[in-house]
Amino acid sequence: MAFKAQVLYDFTAEPGNVELTVKEGETITVTNANIGGGWIEAQNSRGETGLVPEDYIEYSNQFSGTAGTAAPPANVGNAAVPDLSFFDEFAPTSTSAPKQASNGNDPWSVWNSDPSRSSNNNWAPNAEGNQTGRNAAEPWSSGTHSHPQAYQGPGAEDDEWDDEWDEMKSTSGYSEPGEGGAIQRGGTHASSMKISLNKFPGFSKSGPELFLLCKQAAKGKEKISIYLGEVGPVWFYPEAQLDCIVADPKKGSKMYGLKSYIEYQITPNTTNRPVNHRYKHFDWLYERLLDKFGSAIPIPSLPDKQVTGRFEEEFIKMRMERLQGWMTRMCRHPVVSSSEVFQLFLSYKDEKDWKTGKRKAEKDETVGVMIFTTIEAEAPDLDLAEVEQKCEQFSRFTKAMDDGVKEILTVGNEHWKRCTGPLPKEYQRIGKAFQNLSSVFTSSGYQGEATLTDAMTAAGKTYEEIAQIVAEQPKKDLHFLMETNNEYKGLLGCFPDTIGVHKAAIDKVKEADKLVNTNKITAQDKVTMAKRASTMSYALQAEMNHFHSNRIYDYNRVMQQYLEEQVKFYETIAAKLRHAHSQFTTM
Amino acid sequence: MAFKAQVLYDFTAEPGNVELTVKEGETITVTNANIGGGWIEAQNSRGETGLVPEDYIEYSNQFSGTAGTAAPPANVGNAAVPDLSFFDEFAPTSTSAPKQASNGNDPWSVWNSDPSRSSNNNWAPNAEGNQTGRNAAEPWSSGTHSHPQAYQGPGAEDDEWDDEWDEMKSTSGYSEPGEGGAIQRGGTHASSMKISLNKFPGFSKSGPELFLLCKQAAKGKEKISIYLGEVGPVWFYPEAQLDCIVADPKKGSKMYGLKSYIEYQITPNTTNRPVNHRYKHFDWLYERLLDKFGSAIPIPSLPDKQVTGRFEEEFIKMRMERLQGWMTRMCRHPVVSSSEVFQLFLSYKDEKDWKTGKRKAEKDETVGVMIFTTIEAEAPDLDLAEVEQKCEQFSRFTKAMDDGVKEILTVGNEHWKRCTGPLPKEYQRIGKAFQNLSSVFTSSGYQGEATLTDAMTAAGKTYEEIAQIVAEQPKKDLHFLMETNNEYKGLLGCFPDTIGVHKAAIDKVKEADKLVNTNKITAQDKVTMAKRASTMSYALQAEMNHFHSNRIYDYNRVMQQYLEEQVKFYETIAAKLRHAHSQFTTM
Repeated sequence: MAFKAQVLYDFTAEPGNVELTVKEGETITVTNANIGGGWIEAQNSRGETGLVPEDYIEYSNQFSGTAGTAAPPANVGNAAVPDLSFFDEFAPTSTSAPKQASNGNDPWSVWNSDPSRSSNNNWAPNAEGNQTGRNAAEPWSSGTHSHPQAYQGPGAEDDEWDDEWDEMKSTSGYSEPGEGGAIQRGGTHASSMKISLNKFPGFSKSGPELFLLCKQAAKGKEKISIYLGEVGPVWFYPEAQLDCIVADPKKGSKMYGLKSYIEYQITPNTTNRPVNHRYKHFDWLYERLLDKFGSAIPIPSLPDKQVTGRFEEEFIKMRMERLQGWMTRMCRHPVVSSSEVFQLFLSYKDEKDWKTGKRKAEKDETVGVMIFTTIEAEAPDLDLAEVEQKCEQFSRFTKAMDDGVKEILTVGNEHWKRCTGPLPKEYQRIGKAFQNLSSVFTSSGYQGEATLTDAMTAAGKTYEEIAQIVAEQPKKDLHFLMETNNEYKGLLGCFPDTIGVHKAAIDKVKEADKLVNTNKITAQDKVTMAKRASTMSYALQAEMNHFHSNRIYDYNRVMQQYLEEQVKFYETIAAKLRHAHSQFTTM
Repeated sequence: MAFKAQVLYDFTAEPGNVELTVKEGETITVTNANIGGGWIEAQNSRGETGLVPEDYIEYSNQFSGTAGTAAPPANVGNAAVPDLSFFDEFAPTSTSAPKQASNGNDPWSVWNSDPSRSSNNNWAPNAEGNQTGRNAAEPWSSGTHSHPQAYQGPGAEDDEWDDEWDEMKSTSGYSEPGEGGAIQRGGTHASSMKISLNKFPGFSKSGPELFLLCKQAAKGKEKISIYLGEVGPVWFYPEAQLDCIVADPKKGSKMYGLKSYIEYQITPNTTNRPVNHRYKHFDWLYERLLDKFGSAIPIPSLPDKQVTGRFEEEFIKMRMERLQGWMTRMCRHPVVSSSEVFQLFLSYKDEKDWKTGKRKAEKDETVGVMIFTTIEAEAPDLDLAEVEQKCEQFSRFTKAMDDGVKEILTVGNEHWKRCTGPLPKEYQRIGKAFQNLSSVFTSSGYQGEATLTDAMTAAGKTYEEIAQIVAEQPKKDLHFLMETNNEYKGLLGCFPDTIGVHKAAIDKVKEADKLVNTNKITAQDKVTMAKRASTMSYALQAEMNHFHSNRIYDYNRVMQQYLEEQVKFYETIAAKLRHAHSQFTTM
C-alpha cells in the first residue's frame, strides 16, 4: 500500500546511491515504509523512486491513522514525547526487527509514543542505544532540527542495523562556511558528562549517600590507590604509559550496500596487535567509562556526531583525529587505562572474547558513586572544612579555566575565519594588482621596461603565493591550538558533575549531626560518612592533580607547536618576499 | 545690531582661540557680522561669545532682508549661484576690504549673488583666487558640503587676508576613520588639470588652431628642444638635476592671532639658500605652470585642500610630504624646472625680486597652446598617420595605467584598513586570551606551574606587540606605495587634457584639405599645420618618454621599498615569536 507524504526538509541524494533527492514542500508517494533503518522508499511526481530519510517526511493527513494502527504513524509535530526509558521492562522484546529511528525526548519525533507499536518500537530491552535520527536542514543549525543524543541504557546485543547515520555524524565543533572556506570553530562538544542516573533505581546526583552509608562492599580485585606525591594526593600511575594509535579507517557496508560505516583500527602499545572498532563501539566504551568512573573522574564526551557530509575524507580524518585524541587522553589516565573494560576494548583476542567481555562490563555493579568503594587513600582523613575548601578551590579553578578556554576558542575562531577568508583574498588582490599594473607597463612600448615588469610580475605572484600560505596556515597551527582547547572545553564541562557529587556528599555529611539526633543514622555512621567524604576528597585531589599535570603538558606542547609553526609561517613569507625583492634592479 | 541665527553644522572651537563651540540646530545671536574673513562674532544662550564660521550659520527668517539691504543676507539655501568670474570687469574694486568667503559655484553658499553688496563682494578684480569656504560637517564627507576649488584667474596682488582655511586644508586623499585609526586612501586628488580656458579670449580646448595657424611668434629667448634619444624623442635634460627640500614648516599669524598660516622653507640644490613659501604660493606656481605648459606637459595638481584638522602635526607633515613630492616631480621635469617662473619660485633673492618676478610671470603670453611655438624638434616631420598613431597609443596606455593604479589604490586602501583596524585588534585579543588563561593557570595552586605560565604570559605579550607592529606597518610600507600611486593617479588624470589638445590638432589637420578647398586657409598654411602637428607629436613623445623613464624609476623604487619593509616586518615578527617560543621548556 502506498501513502502520500509531504517532504519536511530538503534532502539531496548521494550520487551513485539508491537515494532520492526531494525538496521541502514536495509531495511524494511512500512505496515502501518497511525499509527500516530510518528510511522509506518513495516515488516523486516524475516517477523517480529511491530512499528518503523517514524523519524528512510527514505523512499526509488523509492517511494518518490512529496510534496503534498498522498504517504509518501520524506525525505528532512538536508534541513532547515522554521519556520512557524508565519503563524498559515493560517494552516487548524484538531484537530481530530492524530498529526505527530512536526519538528519545526529541520533540521533532515523527513517532508517537504508543508502546503498542511493537514492530517499530525502539525501546526494546537489550537494544543497543544508537540514535539514527539524521540532522535535518543545515548540519550546524542551532539544533532546532537536531536529534539530541540521549543515553539509552546498556545491555544490548550487537545490532548492526541502523547505525549508518552514527557513522555519518561529524566529530566537528567546526563548520565550513560557504565563503572563503573558513572552518568555524568552537564548542558543540558536549559540555557535560551524561552520568547515568537510572542505572540504579533511586540513585540521583544528590544521593552520594549510596556510597557514604553503604556497607563497604566485599572487596573485589578492583582497587584504586591514591598516594601522597610531591604535589599532593595522586593516583597510582602504572610504570609503562599505555598508548594507542587510531588509524586506517575502512569503509564497510551492509544491507546489500545500502548501509555503510567506517571501521577504525586501534593498536595499543601493549600488545601491538590492532583491533577494529566502529564509532558505536567507542560510544559503548564511553558509556561504560562514564557509568563506572563518572562520579570520580570526568570522562570527556566522544567527538560530536553531527552530520558534515558522507564519507568525505575530511570528515573521516577529523573524526579519526578526535577519536585518537580521546583515546590518548583515556590511555593517559591511570585509573581509566588500567580498567578491565578499557583493556578489553584495546586488546580483545577475538569476537567471542569481545562479546563476553562486553556482557561482563555491562553487568558491572561498581558504577556511579560506588566507584569510591574501590578507592584507597594512603593519607590521613581530612576534616569537613578541608574537604569543602578543596572542592570549592577546584570548582573555582575549573570555572575560570573554562572561561579562559572559551575565550581562546572565540578569538581563535574569528582569527581562523579571517585567515582563511578575507585576508588571503586581499593578498591575492594585491598580487593581481601588481601583476595587472606590470602587464600595463609591458604594453608601453618603452625600451628597458622588462627590468621593472619582470620583477613586478614576480612580486605579484609572490603575493598570490602568500595568499595561499596564509589560507593554509590555520590548519598547521591554529588547528592544533583549537583542537586542544576544544578538548579541554569538553573536559572542563564534565567537572561540574564530578564536583557536584562531592558537594552533595559534603551536604550529606553536614546533615550528619541532625541525622544522628533524629536517629536516622548511628554515631558510627557519621564517622564512616566523614571518612568516606575524605576519601572522595582525596579522589578529587588526585584527579585535579592528574588534570593539572596533563594540562601543563598539553599547553606547553600546544603553545610550543603553535609558536613554532607561526615562526615558520612568518619566516617563509619573509624569505619569499626577500627573493621577490632581489629581482628588482637597484637604480 | 544683533541678529538671531541658526547653527547649520557643529563647530568646535579650537582651544585657546577666540572661537565659540556651537551645535547644529542651536540658535545664536550674531553680535558682529563684520568681522570679515568668513567669520562672525556670536553669543550663545549661555552668554558665551566667540567667533563662528559664517558658512556654519543661517540667519533666522524674521531677520532676513531682501537682497541688497544692509542686513545680513538671507540664506539662499541650495539655489545655485551663477559663476560670475567672467564678469570680473564689472565688479567694483575693493582690494582693501576684507574678503568674504568665496562661494564660486558652491550651491551651499550662504551668500546670494547680488553684486551690489560691494563691501562683502569677493569677485573683486585682481583679488588672488583663494577660497576660504570651510568644509562643513565631516571633512571626508562625499563632498556635499565641500567648497570646490575653482580656478579664479591670475593677476592678483598679494592679499594675505582670508587664506587661513587654505592652510587648514588637507593634502590628503586619505581619511582617518574613527575606528582603528585606519587611514582611508584613494583618490580625492584632482583627476585632471584645470587648463585655463579664459586666459585668451576665444581659446578653447578644441582650438589648437591658435598654434597651428599662428604667425610664428618672434622668437624670445625661450626655446624648448627635443632630441632623438635612444628611446625616441626626448626633452633636453640639463646636466645637473635640479632638486629641492621642502622643510621646516612654521606657523605664522595675522590679525592679532585670529588668522594663522603655515610657511614652508624650500631649499634648492642650486643656490642652497632657503626661501619661504605658503601654500597659496605653491598654488600660484601651479597655476602659472598649468597656464604655461599644461597643453604640452601634464602638470599634476597640488595636494588637495580638504580640512583634516587644525595645525595638527600629522596634517602639516602630510601636506609637507606631498608638497615635497610635487616639487620633486617638477624639479625632475627638464622643461618645467628650467622655466623662469619655477626658478623664481625656488631662488628669488628678496621680496622685491619675488614681486617683480611674480608680475612678469603673470603677464607671460607664451601660455596655452602657444607653448608649442617655443618647441624645436630636431627630427624629421611626421605624417598625420604617425602623429595620430602615437597619440592613440599614449591615450590607451595612460588609460590602462590609470585603471591599474586605481586598482592598487583600492586594494591598498582596503588592506590599510584591515591592517590598522581589525587585524591588530585580533592579535591583541589573541595576546589577551593567552595571558588570561595563563593567569588562571597561575591560580591553580599546583606546583611547577610557573614554567608554563611565565612563558605563556610572554607569548601573550608577544602577540600584543605584534598587534602594534601590524598596526604601525602600513605607515612604513603601504604609505609610500599609496602615496606614489596616488601621485601617479593625479598625474595620469592630467593626460586626457594634454592628449586632448593633440587630438584636436589632428582633427584640424584632417580638415586642412577642405579648408584649402574652401579658401579658408592657403596650401602653405596646410603644410605649416602638418609641420606643427608634427612638433606637437614630438612634444607628446618626449613627454611620454619622460613619463616612462620616471615611472620606471619610481615604481622600481617604491616596489623595492615596499618589499624591503615587508621583509623586515615579517622577520621582526618571526624573531619575536622565536623568542617567545624559546621561553617554553621542552617537556
